Amino acid sequence: MIRYLSNNILFSSSNKIIMNNNNKGIFKFAGIQMMVGSDKKKNIENAQKLIDEASRNNANLVSLPECFNCPYSTSVFNEYSDGCKGETIKALSESAKKNKIWLIGGSIPEKDDDSGKIYNTSFIFNPDGLVVGKHRKIHLFDIDIKDKIRFKESETLSPGHSLTIVDIGYCKIGVGICYDIRFPELAMLYQQEGCKMIVYPGAFNMTTGPAHWELLQRSRAVDNQLYIATVSPCRNPDSSYTAWGHSTVVSPWGEVLTTTDHQESIIYSDIDLSKIDEIRSSIPVLQQKRSDIYQILNKSK
Amino acid sequence: MIRYLSNNILFSSSNKIIMNNNNKGIFKFAGIQMMVGSDKKKNIENAQKLIDEASRNNANLVSLPECFNCPYSTSVFNEYSDGCKGETIKALSESAKKNKIWLIGGSIPEKDDDSGKIYNTSFIFNPDGLVVGKHRKIHLFDIDIKDKIRFKESETLSPGHSLTIVDIGYCKIGVGICYDIRFPELAMLYQQEGCKMIVYPGAFNMTTGPAHWELLQRSRAVDNQLYIATVSPCRNPDSSYTAWGHSTVVSPWGEVLTTTDHQESIIYSDIDLSKIDEIRSSIPVLQQKRSDIYQILNKSK
Repeated sequence: MIRYLSNNILFSSSNKIIMNNNNKGIFKFAGIQMMVGSDKKKNIENAQKLIDEASRNNANLVSLPECFNCPYSTSVFNEYSDGCKGETIKALSESAKKNKIWLIGGSIPEKDDDSGKIYNTSFIFNPDGLVVGKHRKIHLFDIDIKDKIRFKESETLSPGHSLTIVDIGYCKIGVGICYDIRFPELAMLYQQEGCKMIVYPGAFNMTTGPAHWELLQRSRAVDNQLYIATVSPCRNPDSSYTAWGHSTVVSPWGEVLTTTDHQESIIYSDIDLSKIDEIRSSIPVLQQKRSDIYQILNKSK
Repeated sequence: MIRYLSNNILFSSSNKIIMNNNNKGIFKFAGIQMMVGSDKKKNIENAQKLIDEASRNNANLVSLPECFNCPYSTSVFNEYSDGCKGETIKALSESAKKNKIWLIGGSIPEKDDDSGKIYNTSFIFNPDGLVVGKHRKIHLFDIDIKDKIRFKESETLSPGHSLTIVDIGYCKIGVGICYDIRFPELAMLYQQEGCKMIVYPGAFNMTTGPAHWELLQRSRAVDNQLYIATVSPCRNPDSSYTAWGHSTVVSPWGEVLTTTDHQESIIYSDIDLSKIDEIRSSIPVLQQKRSDIYQILNKSK
């Protein structure tokens, strides 16, 4: 059974069990930096195999990379797209349930059953295999850096309109996709809404990757005093889009807790929520905001 | 003659001259990382000497560090404080006029002539020696990192309530002081108001300096696609507060253009405004904000 939610916020019945399993506020995150090729079925099978591996290594929360079942190219998004009841969602639901993990399903080209529009969407599953959140990439990747890289997601994709927050029992998690990380407002709203971690499946490239990938993660972490994780596909020499890789987890103090290069690998990190309280008490910026001078509004509510 | 402004925004008559001097949109910034000791007169004289040096090296915009006339300690702010007509302001006005430069006067403990309250204030001078802006530190530095550093500016200082923007002819400059840099909202408002550069006189310490000083500058620069400069006092082994130093200028792409260690020195950087247009056109995040989802309000107006 797959359940869908209109507001992207749900407290699953299984949260309680998870909370009782671990009252120390530490859970294990795994980010799967997987190879993505042109064979959709093979991509899904590879994802399932690596999810199993992450689970064997005791991960509680697992994330796949952006666009994990499909080459990253506007010209093929339609061909590879899945509806809510498609094979990709079914496979991820089975993997989450089988391994009893929370699963952020990277992203896939999602074809909306009603409108036929295509979105860059992350489906999020609870340990029962239920869909408990669905993030449609809010900020489409439309850039044009002369002689370096041009990409226009908006050629074939439509943008999402909502924040996506999932309570995994340990804490609330905010989800963004790739280019969403460039917009500090989104991370600030997730912090305001009580998230202690933001996970961004994303595929930066060989220009923006070395320049900004780690910087953006560390700045979102320090400004909001929470954990940031990014999960990229690994670099595929046959792909028209060369992913930077370097999936990473950053602490609320801005330290890189774990990272990797551009090969296929799984990154792991313990997420210790008590660190957040410690840092927020040491440098209490979140209490020192000057709401008489500025205010950030959440207009999506 | 020293002129004061109520709204902190002024277009000086001398702007025109400056603009005609340089229509390519490139100007030279100098940040004076000076030694600050316990002799107020000596500190002021040292500042004047180094401003002269920066001017001889063709700087158009010069900034002194935070708390340049006074040891950085809450217990002495009152003793070292100056009013608007005090010796420090007089000396800086003379230096700006003599050298025909724009001068961001780092900061000093300012005693308000009416209320008697003390602020951590940056006075800003145009090439005629007129005060064209006055930034009172908005976010007071109140932190307590166990076994590392405890500091409570609010023990003796009062906070400011306004943004501070000065048009130097080439572009608008926003001013913040030290801890102000930790609040992304302030930099975002300066960007919204059209600033192309933000200058933060600041004195980070041996805990937060290595952890966050450069990161915060680079993230403010990349998120807002503008230039960031920080100007610290140099490290004084006799001081109770050990400054990190490392005055820096960062480009709108997040590159460190110039920096230094903890010794007394002047950093220089050409500020090429055409780079901003280029980057904003390549990665147009400022046009891609989702005002239907979030909005940052300037409530100080």
